[in-house]
Amino acid sequence: MVKSVGIVGLGLIGGSLARRLAQRDVEVVAWNHNERPYDAARRDGITCVGSLEELAAAKPEVLFLCNPLKVMPEMLQRLAPVLDRETTTLSDVGSVKGMVRQQVEEAGLADCYVGAHPMAGTEFSGFAASDPAIYDEALWAISVDETTDYQRFLKVATLITGVVGNRIIVLNDTTHDRAAAMISHTPHVVSTAFINELSASPDRNIAAALAAGSWRDMTRVALTDPERTRAMIEEDADNVETLLRDLAARLTTFADDLQVHDDAALTRFFAAGQPFRDYKLRERESVESQESSRIGESHESGKPENDDTERIVISVPKSGWQQTFLDSARRGEHIVRFIQPWQVEVETRSAI
Amino acid sequence: MVKSVGIVGLGLIGGSLARRLAQRDVEVVAWNHNERPYDAARRDGITCVGSLEELAAAKPEVLFLCNPLKVMPEMLQRLAPVLDRETTTLSDVGSVKGMVRQQVEEAGLADCYVGAHPMAGTEFSGFAASDPAIYDEALWAISVDETTDYQRFLKVATLITGVVGNRIIVLNDTTHDRAAAMISHTPHVVSTAFINELSASPDRNIAAALAAGSWRDMTRVALTDPERTRAMIEEDADNVETLLRDLAARLTTFADDLQVHDDAALTRFFAAGQPFRDYKLRERESVESQESSRIGESHESGKPENDDTERIVISVPKSGWQQTFLDSARRGEHIVRFIQPWQVEVETRSAI
Repeated sequence: MVKSVGIVGLGLIGGSLARRLAQRDVEVVAWNHNERPYDAARRDGITCVGSLEELAAAKPEVLFLCNPLKVMPEMLQRLAPVLDRETTTLSDVGSVKGMVRQQVEEAGLADCYVGAHPMAGTEFSGFAASDPAIYDEALWAISVDETTDYQRFLKVATLITGVVGNRIIVLNDTTHDRAAAMISHTPHVVSTAFINELSASPDRNIAAALAAGSWRDMTRVALTDPERTRAMIEEDADNVETLLRDLAARLTTFADDLQVHDDAALTRFFAAGQPFRDYKLRERESVESQESSRIGESHESGKPENDDTERIVISVPKSGWQQTFLDSARRGEHIVRFIQPWQVEVETRSAI
Repeated sequence: MVKSVGIVGLGLIGGSLARRLAQRDVEVVAWNHNERPYDAARRDGITCVGSLEELAAAKPEVLFLCNPLKVMPEMLQRLAPVLDRETTTLSDVGSVKGMVRQQVEEAGLADCYVGAHPMAGTEFSGFAASDPAIYDEALWAISVDETTDYQRFLKVATLITGVVGNRIIVLNDTTHDRAAAMISHTPHVVSTAFINELSASPDRNIAAALAAGSWRDMTRVALTDPERTRAMIEEDADNVETLLRDLAARLTTFADDLQVHDDAALTRFFAAGQPFRDYKLRERESVESQESSRIGESHESGKPENDDTERIVISVPKSGWQQTFLDSARRGEHIVRFIQPWQVEVETRSAI
């Protein structure tokens, strides 16, 4: 059981995590680049210190870097000479994992590092907007490589499944960043390309006048801060580039098929995503069924109808544990708890 | 003043229009391919007839085809021998205009036709879901060509700005369908390409687990009925094809720029859509300002602060009126009323 955690950066993500841990009797020591959130944080039971060096000296068992990615190299360089690597396992909550690990390696801290990325957040930022509840039902990606120490991995993983009370999936950096490119970074580029297309058209006011829900959804993320979007994309540049070329090829092939009215090809295009449509449908049915069971319509089995949630136990081999976890994540399983160090319980709700 | 209107098809769009017109003392006669909605429609003051031929024989001043696009050729072929072209102006509410005009021409009905497309609707369908209020604040695109008779255009246009109480913009078919490809049809293809990409990935369950708001927005329209989406795209195939190629080129150029870290090019990409971001911001400010004025915070001018709505009067030349209207729509103006047959009042809220 991890008893002490260090937090660098009391923003939305770091602040909410610090408060959740403090609520659950973990000793939390935090440092922020300014002292503005300190009064409020102290009222929540968080120990606030005057410098990053002081935070390292407190020797927390796990130290989460929750600072913006752009200051990550600086934080790591400052930590390198002062961190007690025996006691402290270094982690982070960054939304890209490959770039952060490279920076960790450059700072010579690879041996004590385990990457993490919680799927949590709101549109707001700063400690004032923080809320331990943003971690309710959250899923974390834990990112490891071939050299990751299993005991350190266990420390971070059981802290999250245990005290924080969340589910995890265990990935390597490439898989994580490729998935992030698919579900977030590349959609941001495409959305921006659409508003560029409209802005360049002599008929832009007409198009905007005719626009309804599909346009609004397609372009919403292009309206968010373009500087932040650009930074996010450049941090995952290789994966975004690959995916954009793939997507451009898909759109060109569809244009070719449309031009020659290739009926079979058009049919294939609209059928290819059916597994995802079916998955979303099952997911919705499952949510509705959980809601109806919550309001007292539960069934004799104690499990709501249409709930295809399954829990199974997986044994993890000492050699190749990374691949065992990755395969499990690929099957759509989420780790809910560690029964023993080499045995986990996983849950599958609905897989694609 | 148009006193009688015929409606073919009492679905969501046709049913709601029929009810709105009947409420406002227009004599409405309707035919539906089955009699299911007739009892309810009659209670709303709509005269329901037993055949399309009977509807034509009632000689409404304007007849709106509100049937599904796929039966449009059949409807037109049946109307051709029975329509009193002297009395009745033919219109429709189809979401593509080029294909419908071609079908109208093939049926020999071009001389009495004026195209229309109301920006109204909900996710539901059928007369049971109809509601005259779906036309509140609606904008219609009226589609004309070089041969359109101005008196017939006036009939349809003043019916909409007058009795129906809506704004209009006047376009040609190409401009309408190109804009529709931009704001609806092409986004549907791109959204589908994304779920295809995910479904084909060995990491699909991982990507789905990490997905949040940007993925949900990007792929929402891909979850709607793929058969209907496909039909919509094939009806506007040329414009969708052109736009897809353009978009594929934009994405490829961005991938190239990302690969070589072309700072200036990336900056240009994220700046190119700024006119649309600024427009959305003004639009939101204007809505917020209208809301605050509605709750009693209005200003001395009687016009809410930040409301950049302007009304001006435009004279329409007898030769080249189509271009005058198109130029006005391109500037972001909406026609709110006809002062005289050749003079309109237009409103600009915010232009891009």
